[in-house]
Amino acid sequence: MEKLRRAILEQGRGIGSNIVKVDMFLNHRLDTRLMFDMGRELADYFRKDTPDIVLTVEASGIAIALTAAHYLGDVPVVFAKKAGTSTQSPDMITAVAHSFTHGNDNILRIDRHYLPEGSRVLVVDDFLADGQASHALISMVQQAGCTLVGVGVAVEKGFQPGGKKLREAGVNLKSLAIVESIENGVIRLAEED
Amino acid sequence: MEKLRRAILEQGRGIGSNIVKVDMFLNHRLDTRLMFDMGRELADYFRKDTPDIVLTVEASGIAIALTAAHYLGDVPVVFAKKAGTSTQSPDMITAVAHSFTHGNDNILRIDRHYLPEGSRVLVVDDFLADGQASHALISMVQQAGCTLVGVGVAVEKGFQPGGKKLREAGVNLKSLAIVESIENGVIRLAEED
Repeated sequence: MEKLRRAILEQGRGIGSNIVKVDMFLNHRLDTRLMFDMGRELADYFRKDTPDIVLTVEASGIAIALTAAHYLGDVPVVFAKKAGTSTQSPDMITAVAHSFTHGNDNILRIDRHYLPEGSRVLVVDDFLADGQASHALISMVQQAGCTLVGVGVAVEKGFQPGGKKLREAGVNLKSLAIVESIENGVIRLAEED
Repeated sequence: MEKLRRAILEQGRGIGSNIVKVDMFLNHRLDTRLMFDMGRELADYFRKDTPDIVLTVEASGIAIALTAAHYLGDVPVVFAKKAGTSTQSPDMITAVAHSFTHGNDNILRIDRHYLPEGSRVLVVDDFLADGQASHALISMVQQAGCTLVGVGVAVEKGFQPGGKKLREAGVNLKSLAIVESIENGVIRLAEED
């Protein structure tokens, strides 16, 4: 998506060989117009698959999930919560997502009532790197007896294995921009597909 | 706001004398159309005060902050992060918000670059109870040398002191619905003002 690519190249900062700092428009400060444009792009891509729920994880996935849901006809959004050691209700679906960034395990949880069996679920997130969050969300979609229609992300880190693993598993993955490499602070993006 | 009031009364659940469970449309599952309608209502109320940034705190404030920002002409959103013990950069503004619900202190932090001095900031959140989060956000607005134009929330718990304290401090507070009491699971709302 050209507008996101331009934002990454013009405003983003590469740090070392691994970090893409885009918190000036994507995950701390939000460029509101860009959030809507990204949501519309994902909605246009997945509309034919008729998702009826958009699923994400708190916190920075919420904005793009909401705008995608809006352009899909105001379908509801569900966001998984990062549980600490708190209440484990029998009505909760849970999955573990390891964070390589923070070196810890997040237990994600969703109230089962909000993923009714048989729903068609689109998973949306701001970043795809190792794919731990996506895998946890997909596991919860399956536990709920729902159908996964695909995964839409804003920025995929193409040099980490998350995207490859999803594609090999046959998941319909749409990444609005793919970072191919970061070298000495220079961000290189993959060509548009 | 009539639509929110109806959602609270028809879908919300009062628990004990203190808890309003509205996570079926406000803070776990999101009713997308309601999020947009609430954002428009807040935008209409504060438009004359020309905010140029909408500030909230992760996670459940993000959706309504984004829609308010959209109807204010796509101004940017900034969401404060709940820091653990992580990096304390000199460019970070911080404030402490005590959570009575979870019995712990959250350190909220914002990268100073995203609240440029002189900005006109509207604080938005999903809930106002004791007012700890609002006070922390307002403190950060002041630390950044910005002007607070007001505070907009979806649900105010009128029997907790947050709203009263803000009004007494002269803050322009707009609550879209005010819960007056919860008794044996019955939620009573204040009359519309």
